[in-house]
Amino acid sequence: MTPSTSSPLSVAIQGEAGAFSHQAAMQIFGPGVNLVPTRTFDDLFAAVLTGRAERAVVPVENTLAGSVQGNLDRILQHSLHIVGETGVRIQLAFVAPPGRSLSEIRRAASHPVALQQCQRFFRDHADIEPVAVYDTAGSVRDLMDGSSAYEAAIGSAWAAELYGAKILFPEIEDDPKNFTRFFVVSRDAEEAPRDGAKTSLAFVVAHEPGSLHRALGVFASRGADLTKLESRPIRGRPWEYRFFADVRGHPEGSLGECLEELRGLAAEFQLLGSYGEWTEIEPSAG
Amino acid sequence: MTPSTSSPLSVAIQGEAGAFSHQAAMQIFGPGVNLVPTRTFDDLFAAVLTGRAERAVVPVENTLAGSVQGNLDRILQHSLHIVGETGVRIQLAFVAPPGRSLSEIRRAASHPVALQQCQRFFRDHADIEPVAVYDTAGSVRDLMDGSSAYEAAIGSAWAAELYGAKILFPEIEDDPKNFTRFFVVSRDAEEAPRDGAKTSLAFVVAHEPGSLHRALGVFASRGADLTKLESRPIRGRPWEYRFFADVRGHPEGSLGECLEELRGLAAEFQLLGSYGEWTEIEPSAG
Repeated sequence: MTPSTSSPLSVAIQGEAGAFSHQAAMQIFGPGVNLVPTRTFDDLFAAVLTGRAERAVVPVENTLAGSVQGNLDRILQHSLHIVGETGVRIQLAFVAPPGRSLSEIRRAASHPVALQQCQRFFRDHADIEPVAVYDTAGSVRDLMDGSSAYEAAIGSAWAAELYGAKILFPEIEDDPKNFTRFFVVSRDAEEAPRDGAKTSLAFVVAHEPGSLHRALGVFASRGADLTKLESRPIRGRPWEYRFFADVRGHPEGSLGECLEELRGLAAEFQLLGSYGEWTEIEPSAG
Repeated sequence: MTPSTSSPLSVAIQGEAGAFSHQAAMQIFGPGVNLVPTRTFDDLFAAVLTGRAERAVVPVENTLAGSVQGNLDRILQHSLHIVGETGVRIQLAFVAPPGRSLSEIRRAASHPVALQQCQRFFRDHADIEPVAVYDTAGSVRDLMDGSSAYEAAIGSAWAAELYGAKILFPEIEDDPKNFTRFFVVSRDAEEAPRDGAKTSLAFVVAHEPGSLHRALGVFASRGADLTKLESRPIRGRPWEYRFFADVRGHPEGSLGECLEELRGLAAEFQLLGSYGEWTEIEPSAG
């Protein structure tokens, strides 16, 4: 990543200022990032494709919910380049306008995935009804606008600060080992560091016994470290799958031979990008 | 599968009579199935765990949307047995009460995944607003009850017939190659046919280079046909994954040695069940 020091990069996110995607953008581009909020994932990709934003920060997996379905497909479909990754700890605060007491709260809004991750809270507060909206930070903003049909919201502590909401409960998520991983995508490829690089790719193998095993053999035989393998259905070809893989290394370094061999072996093969690995949180930490 | 001929089996589904899950239940158990409708996937699993239903019919993947996230985890977590599979073609009809004209329709309700699969229709009818509800058939039923806050619904032609709705457009889904695969689950294992069996399993491999390749080698070396491999995050162990696999064969037949070897190799290993393969629709059929 080579963020310009003169004018801040414009970076699109799904959601509003204060969203976890905004935290991810700031981790990579610094607090001065020029944020382009969008409403849906399709809008997010449109922002970077039309040039309205120079980068998009795209959530791709959560350690509790799993894959953010469709986003890897969108990166591939639009021939975008993955140029960075980061991760954000998802801490969900229960917030309300200052002066509002818990007994006045009947409905609490957030993104459906966030609501899903606060099941214990809603069991313990059975009189509060969850309301699904498009964004965690958007729920806090609309709550503080006074325009919403709910009396509380669930979002980051930072969204609460940004919009002046009061935190009634700071961490109501069921499980603290709750992280979301984000890719930074761009229309143009970028030079990735040779040391500590990770490479993302997509491939399809023939529909025959042993084909996936042979494909993974190109990495195993050279000791390359596959950190993620995800299968996605191929549109128009029921019960056939495309694999998305992340591997430690760089195509112009240790992965060169692996990738050439896989390209020859696979029915379809695409390199999605190489980028510096995000290492703040160790896989088995905490 | 050995459905009783005396009294019909009680079979739980997520959704209402007329849902695609109901079609799946009838494909396996016949039209006389004793249906137990439930509202959420957690309710669906509770029905079979408490004995309120003898079987549950569980959607696990869709050829456009991908995995129905969380349902394989639930099967494993509750130690249920997979005893059957089937698939249903998802044809989405746009329906309204008889006599209502298109120009009177402002809102159309359905399950969020169904709405997502009718994007072209909503682009072509930009004055109609999609409304997300918990079930396709439930949207049709509530529409015909007159209790709903929408003027049309999107569901199966069969749900329309069941609740007396009129079909305005019979197939509004974006892509006709739209199938959902279902598992039948039970508290007890069942005898699977030796010929044409498929076996589902879950395993975790050590977090080191080559470990997944070695695990898949147990199948590849014996020509066993892996038809599906899906990774899911492991709760409490960020960035570690459990693999769910489907393989053609039977543990007491061709798969015996493979499974014993994998059990020795894997850090965690569970057999989820064996069942007759659903073969109505060929993988590459038009």
